Amino acid sequence: MNDDARPGEFELIAELFAPLAAGLPGAFGLRDDAAVLTPPAGRAMVVTTDMLVAGVHFPADEDGSDVARRLLRVNLSDLAAMGARPVAYLLALGIPDAIEMGWLRRFADGLADDQEEFGIHLAGGDTTSTPGPLTASITAIGEAPVGGELRRSTAHAGDLVYVSGAIGDAALGLIEVRDGLTGVNAAARAGLARRYRLPQPRVGLGIALRGVASACADVSDGLVADLDHICEASGVAAEIQMDRVPLSDAARQAIGHDPSLMRAVVTGGDDYELVFTVPPAVEDRLSTAAGESGVSVTGIGRVIPGRGVTVFDGSGAPLELESAGYRHF
Amino acid sequence: MNDDARPGEFELIAELFAPLAAGLPGAFGLRDDAAVLTPPAGRAMVVTTDMLVAGVHFPADEDGSDVARRLLRVNLSDLAAMGARPVAYLLALGIPDAIEMGWLRRFADGLADDQEEFGIHLAGGDTTSTPGPLTASITAIGEAPVGGELRRSTAHAGDLVYVSGAIGDAALGLIEVRDGLTGVNAAARAGLARRYRLPQPRVGLGIALRGVASACADVSDGLVADLDHICEASGVAAEIQMDRVPLSDAARQAIGHDPSLMRAVVTGGDDYELVFTVPPAVEDRLSTAAGESGVSVTGIGRVIPGRGVTVFDGSGAPLELESAGYRHF
Repeated sequence: MNDDARPGEFELIAELFAPLAAGLPGAFGLRDDAAVLTPPAGRAMVVTTDMLVAGVHFPADEDGSDVARRLLRVNLSDLAAMGARPVAYLLALGIPDAIEMGWLRRFADGLADDQEEFGIHLAGGDTTSTPGPLTASITAIGEAPVGGELRRSTAHAGDLVYVSGAIGDAALGLIEVRDGLTGVNAAARAGLARRYRLPQPRVGLGIALRGVASACADVSDGLVADLDHICEASGVAAEIQMDRVPLSDAARQAIGHDPSLMRAVVTGGDDYELVFTVPPAVEDRLSTAAGESGVSVTGIGRVIPGRGVTVFDGSGAPLELESAGYRHF
Repeated sequence: MNDDARPGEFELIAELFAPLAAGLPGAFGLRDDAAVLTPPAGRAMVVTTDMLVAGVHFPADEDGSDVARRLLRVNLSDLAAMGARPVAYLLALGIPDAIEMGWLRRFADGLADDQEEFGIHLAGGDTTSTPGPLTASITAIGEAPVGGELRRSTAHAGDLVYVSGAIGDAALGLIEVRDGLTGVNAAARAGLARRYRLPQPRVGLGIALRGVASACADVSDGLVADLDHICEASGVAAEIQMDRVPLSDAARQAIGHDPSLMRAVVTGGDDYELVFTVPPAVEDRLSTAAGESGVSVTGIGRVIPGRGVTVFDGSGAPLELESAGYRHF
């Protein structure tokens, strides 16, 4: 108990979290037992949850704002993968005694920044003390037209495989954060680390892909693993060309210095880009959708009958991949 | 990492948690990025979240089934307080290495039992390892007619104050669990401890109180504290008669032996009964509502102009209460 350094639960909620709920009338200022959300007619609610633990998902000394934004964004990325528009979120926070009020203020500031960026509000929460590391979970709630959400299980043989943005920055950023990357300039190293720390969920693109993509997932476990999730759920296979996977300039620099890093690019997690399939007949609508959302999309392969994901290198040989993405345990 | 003793995250979800989502088509077997819930026309979604930490909210050696059911039920109690019908929930689980698969199976079994009892399904989740104590948070989702939910802020002077069931069992059960109660027989002690460990959310009553209660909260912080939440939100005061507060036989036994325990009854938390206000004009409809839900309700006082809650003892003297309920920090 750290009552001098930090106010009690009610005061914490009043000072830090109630302001985050001010824009959502149904949150009742976080002063009721639950919040009320009223979806417009014909809309379904899309819900997802993620938990982050200090020392497991982020360094224990990471800035509160970055932790909050990362947690919110990994949830928003799940909504993006379903083509849902973010509406609100709930936050559960286990706070160790050693956490200071300043850190919590930064945490709330980070949420406030991202609420504005993504047009969402805090709908409810729970704070408690914990003898363990800081542990935070968010449940994000979005909305999509009934039956219009993007799914993983609806890809078909013949569809084209696309990804958004650039792949592998987060995996390389994690290497930079943990061990340091060599042969890459300082600005590029910082950029990769930033891409790892603060993902950019493709919310606008996800919404624009409704009625265009036949299936979609976000790249959280790794490009190959998440495409494989689509394949498994859809009962199909996919083949992708490694040299078509879009890379940032920083990633190009790192791979130019050490070509073996390409393996980390296709199997590493945490990019929070979208990987999706598009029937060839609607490929023209894809460029419109991508243009509207301001996010680049790149075709990297195709869906075929069968099971599993094969990655072909520049010479046309299939890559042997021992690990199909990051697993937490 | 404890891969021999426990399967990985994907296997854990497939074995333990996907079966809990089988009854909810929009959960997609927990194999998609998010779940889709479609509220019927004219219905709002009611959402709430709670986090429990081993060693803080329950003993670290507590049975997995009890922990799971308690966590689910404290959330369902929040839905009950809003008059919402439970629909689904999401689970985020931080699992220490020392937790064995058998414990997690019991945890999932407890959820399965309560899913059946309360007619809900798992809609999504996240599991992760943690170096800290087991930490679990649930977000529960219910539905209520648009504008028909029960609120805290809508009590008026002149309304009657009611509570459901019996008050104080959980506070006495906590004393029994921590220090042991004296002058109470073994069966009563076990019953009180059970009431503390496994609350009974008043879901049916909450739904039946729509259109009857003018305001409602669940008794989680303590009778006086939660009634005070209603008063504060509604801008009113309340007075209650201590000798009208309904007690179980076990609580009567304990208080008969040590009358000072009555203080714990009115200020202790965790009963998860409902405290609510009823305009005198609809009091006749209250007995119908209570009868339908099979839960007793007892009038204990009234709402008056002003602020705060006053408890009068049997002699008509106001009770001095130093603490208005349990605070986590």
